[in-house]
Amino acid sequence: MPAPLQIGIVIFPKVTQLDLTGPLQVFSNLPGAKVYLIWKRIEPVPSDSVLTLTPTSTFADSPQLDVICVPGGAGINDMVNDAEMLDFLRAQAKAAKYITSVCTGSLVLGAAGLLRGYQATTHWSAMEFLPAFGATPVKTRVCTDRNRVTGGGVTAGIDFALTLVSMLADQRTAETIQLGLEYDPAPPFNAGTPDVAPPEVLALSRERIASTQPRRSEAVRRAAARLAQPA
Amino acid sequence: MPAPLQIGIVIFPKVTQLDLTGPLQVFSNLPGAKVYLIWKRIEPVPSDSVLTLTPTSTFADSPQLDVICVPGGAGINDMVNDAEMLDFLRAQAKAAKYITSVCTGSLVLGAAGLLRGYQATTHWSAMEFLPAFGATPVKTRVCTDRNRVTGGGVTAGIDFALTLVSMLADQRTAETIQLGLEYDPAPPFNAGTPDVAPPEVLALSRERIASTQPRRSEAVRRAAARLAQPA
Repeated sequence: MPAPLQIGIVIFPKVTQLDLTGPLQVFSNLPGAKVYLIWKRIEPVPSDSVLTLTPTSTFADSPQLDVICVPGGAGINDMVNDAEMLDFLRAQAKAAKYITSVCTGSLVLGAAGLLRGYQATTHWSAMEFLPAFGATPVKTRVCTDRNRVTGGGVTAGIDFALTLVSMLADQRTAETIQLGLEYDPAPPFNAGTPDVAPPEVLALSRERIASTQPRRSEAVRRAAARLAQPA
Repeated sequence: MPAPLQIGIVIFPKVTQLDLTGPLQVFSNLPGAKVYLIWKRIEPVPSDSVLTLTPTSTFADSPQLDVICVPGGAGINDMVNDAEMLDFLRAQAKAAKYITSVCTGSLVLGAAGLLRGYQATTHWSAMEFLPAFGATPVKTRVCTDRNRVTGGGVTAGIDFALTLVSMLADQRTAETIQLGLEYDPAPPFNAGTPDVAPPEVLALSRERIASTQPRRSEAVRRAAARLAQPA
């Protein structure tokens, strides 16, 4: 029997839980895959909701991963300047087959220096921050550039994970998982991107984002400055 | 300020985690809502994947809920005959505004006697079990019949939750959440239902389900027999 495919998802305080629970559901149904939830310590990690996440491995005891995946959320404002997280990602990236993210997780990959010269995507509200890390923002739901595979905001994680499974295994395997998860989406409304959302919905979203954007902007500025220094 | 809207999601061993983490993400973004994850005891509950779920309330200390939601998964085979779970659902249902489910969670609602004379939906592989509980199966992604709102398999939970939010609040609120979650799905393949999946993908899925169906069938038979007895 071949060695299991090692898939690691990092978690951190204030992660957007659906950024990772969507891909987790897909990866968990991939035959021969072993999935890890990885954080600094084995301790309950609060998500953005009432769901608390329990890591299965620490940075220190994680095996070499075939796939490393970074989800997003408000907590990335800390993670883009968290040396332990960035060191872990850089160390794993040396031998990982795929270096991946969902939503604003791509800013953490960027802060680790792992997206320099790559195309990448992220949540629509964070596109402007990718260039600070030398990445070229691409407005697609899933962006594949060599072995970097990045997904858009939150729910894009499901499309991302099915795409990645087709690369790790094959299309038939991804389709079988899709059928099991009855993934034939039918959003009741048409408001999933700034391009299609009603103007007042977009205005309300932008207003809310405006209140949190300065903190993110400052965190990214610090991370990018550190990255620019000679090691 | 109005009292918060109380939304409770029951959890149980071997629940399919995305059945609840999708709706949880939507409900958590609903202004004025308080969300509970409810189980018999405050103890880690294993899901169908490496994710362990931590309840926030017990059946005993849960407040009266405005919305009760039952997710699905392999664990429902036990839950359809679990007196504590069924008693909790029946007691809450007396005053809840909406009685809801995702995926095979509708079989648990059915086993509690809460779908008799109602239209309902479930995962495509479980449609055949709804009539045993007096429910009429409807092949839609979200099924609303009076105050019963049921969602189809796994990922249908996101469509279900956005639909329910538009009923609890209004369409603009649901659209604002949809935009925040960038829910503009683009499945990389077209295999999300038995009607569209490639024949060999459907055959493989049916083969796998055939191995677990007898146990589910027996659990449903027992639950339906008990329900038919005079109280």
